[in-house]
Amino acid sequence: MSIVTLTTDFGGGSHYAAAMKGVILSICPTAVIVDISHDVPPQDVRRAALLLDNAAEWFPAETIHVAVVDPGVGTDRALVYARIGRQHFLAPDNGLLSRLARRTPPEKLIRLAEPAYWLPKVSTTFHGRDILAPAAAHLAAGLDPDRLGPPLERLCWLDWSEARVQPARVDGAVIEVDSFGNLITNITSDMLAGRPTDRRACVVCNIFETWGIYHAYGQQASGTLVAVIGSSGRLELAIVRDNAAKRLGVGVGSPVTLAWEAI
Amino acid sequence: MSIVTLTTDFGGGSHYAAAMKGVILSICPTAVIVDISHDVPPQDVRRAALLLDNAAEWFPAETIHVAVVDPGVGTDRALVYARIGRQHFLAPDNGLLSRLARRTPPEKLIRLAEPAYWLPKVSTTFHGRDILAPAAAHLAAGLDPDRLGPPLERLCWLDWSEARVQPARVDGAVIEVDSFGNLITNITSDMLAGRPTDRRACVVCNIFETWGIYHAYGQQASGTLVAVIGSSGRLELAIVRDNAAKRLGVGVGSPVTLAWEAI
Amino acid sequence: MSIVTLTTDFGGGSHYAAAMKGVILSICPTAVIVDISHDVPPQDVRRAALLLDNAAEWFPAETIHVAVVDPGVGTDRALVYARIGRQHFLAPDNGLLSRLARRTPPEKLIRLAEPAYWLPKVSTTFHGRDILAPAAAHLAAGLDPDRLGPPLERLCWLDWSEARVQPARVDGAVIEVDSFGNLITNITSDMLAGRPTDRRACVVCNIFETWGIYHAYGQQASGTLVAVIGSSGRLELAIVRDNAAKRLGVGVGSPVTLAWEAI
Repeated sequence: MSIVTLTTDFGGGSHYAAAMKGVILSICPTAVIVDISHDVPPQDVRRAALLLDNAAEWFPAETIHVAVVDPGVGTDRALVYARIGRQHFLAPDNGLLSRLARRTPPEKLIRLAEPAYWLPKVSTTFHGRDILAPAAAHLAAGLDPDRLGPPLERLCWLDWSEARVQPARVDGAVIEVDSFGNLITNITSDMLAGRPTDRRACVVCNIFETWGIYHAYGQQASGTLVAVIGSSGRLELAIVRDNAAKRLGVGVGSPVTLAWEAI
Repeated sequence: MSIVTLTTDFGGGSHYAAAMKGVILSICPTAVIVDISHDVPPQDVRRAALLLDNAAEWFPAETIHVAVVDPGVGTDRALVYARIGRQHFLAPDNGLLSRLARRTPPEKLIRLAEPAYWLPKVSTTFHGRDILAPAAAHLAAGLDPDRLGPPLERLCWLDWSEARVQPARVDGAVIEVDSFGNLITNITSDMLAGRPTDRRACVVCNIFETWGIYHAYGQQASGTLVAVIGSSGRLELAIVRDNAAKRLGVGVGSPVTLAWEAI
Repeated sequence: MSIVTLTTDFGGGSHYAAAMKGVILSICPTAVIVDISHDVPPQDVRRAALLLDNAAEWFPAETIHVAVVDPGVGTDRALVYARIGRQHFLAPDNGLLSRLARRTPPEKLIRLAEPAYWLPKVSTTFHGRDILAPAAAHLAAGLDPDRLGPPLERLCWLDWSEARVQPARVDGAVIEVDSFGNLITNITSDMLAGRPTDRRACVVCNIFETWGIYHAYGQQASGTLVAVIGSSGRLELAIVRDNAAKRLGVGVGSPVTLAWEAI
């Protein structure tokens, strides 16, 4: 029994995700299919890369993750298999796996080139259904990944900006807005090691600021801007019981600075 | 093989539900995970309580239901296990289970306090992933619920207003708006027992009224306001082939009166 | 192990799809339930018919498809079982299966009339839960479809307009807008057989036109209107990396003409 996850920008109103599921179950009837998300904004490869990186680590070893956000479908961009952190990943080689690979270097990279593991007829506009889904299903049924094609030297890479750690401050940015409107930054908990998290720590985003880093949203009153270390180990800005992104008019890319008063 | 359902306010665009699924399948690979809904409006505990109450009764005995709408995550609110109606429920103790418990008193209440059944590292902002999901997975794998922690005396309660039955009328309110815009009230079919449902029965909501209680939406012409006893055994107001909530500008909390002419 | 798919207009925020899943798993615990979509626009039977037709062919033989878009629930419209293309279909008889049946004539049609395979108590407003879901679950558990009721002579039919093929042109229309805003027409690839697809082919939709039929969206620059043969073998109009339906203000029903210059 193998787990196959799906991460796409297909939305809920189309048949595209269902077609992939049908293909997978036709080839490997015992596959357990899990949706990570089909609500990636259309063609937003970066968002898909982050979602997959956030979700994958919680799945068991040997899970097969398929991600399809593929504006270059039908052009000469490659399709790729990667073994990363004891799991399997299949995606277009457009940077979608680069967030995962940044954290954990791939053990194996293969370019999908063996049509024996694709649908007999391959369209030019839906390789998710015609190549990635059948390849994943064959893996779920026990295929050795080496059979999928020749080695690939390196993954296509996206620029993932890092927060800059300085003596009395960390300069970062919002990299995700979650479904609650919480602003999730690239400032990680280890960047705070040994520094105060009480009211001597000041977090500034745009024209807004808040002092102290809390453990829980509910430690402050409703409507308060609060900084917490969130469930991914990164600094988040939230408004208690409200949507920070909407209230503050802040989104992905906005700079966030964490500064300490002279101690 | 155990069924584990999920009801959350995580939305479709985040990785939060997927992370819970990964945790569950890591601990209990044979669990069958069913989404009840991830589209509860953010932090709307009442809506989640109603959804779970509406859905749970249709699942088999021994189903494990996990619900996460948890604005107080990380504060001192408890996490709770409840055995209700031969099924298992896991949720923050913030009233989320009080709609179910109002109908069927829990046979067993436990406060989740045994970290052996949690993830090794527990964040302060995502107890759904770190405590509820692993506890549910251990139950799915056969754990005795008594191992999860000590008994809890009573559930946190929300006020669920009842319709008032009077000699010639019932005074109720809209308690849910469904995905079609139908207005679902707290007036139940048993409150109508022995009373006429023909055109002597008048249903008033806001400035709108309609006579007679029908069996099916399609018994009246498109665009007509119609009262029916819906699939949950409660009085509903609908506009045939249209969205009553939008057309009438009516929502949860709006009073609905069912009155009978002098018979 | 049987696959049961669901296609409905219930949306993500209601308990209706979950109730159907609970009913199915109560009767057939080993059923593998796959969502095709719950985001059919409310009561849009045509859209559901297209979605189901698009998705079903990718599923294995013997898959059981349940579709519930049912504005006539509780009236005298029939509920129907159809065997089409080695798969099973259950739906209200309101045209929902007519798109499938247009392509592949049903081998068997049955009117659901045997209450032994329904829930003991049947509501007047939710036959998806009370009749279709249990009938599907009994099929999944091995029931002979002939037990569900007497033969039905013919399906309710919707008008599915065909493109008109003429000597130097094909006159068609947009029949679907997908989740990317791509405009999918009823002009099929076989209508192009033997004709040029290079820049002598002109596609006109509304006041917009584009020359040549491409293999992939990404063959043209971002923002370009492009015609491709899509993954269902039909002519599509897309704007590269953008939403054609929104940009052009075009939707289902808009005429699309493919014309060839005198060759």
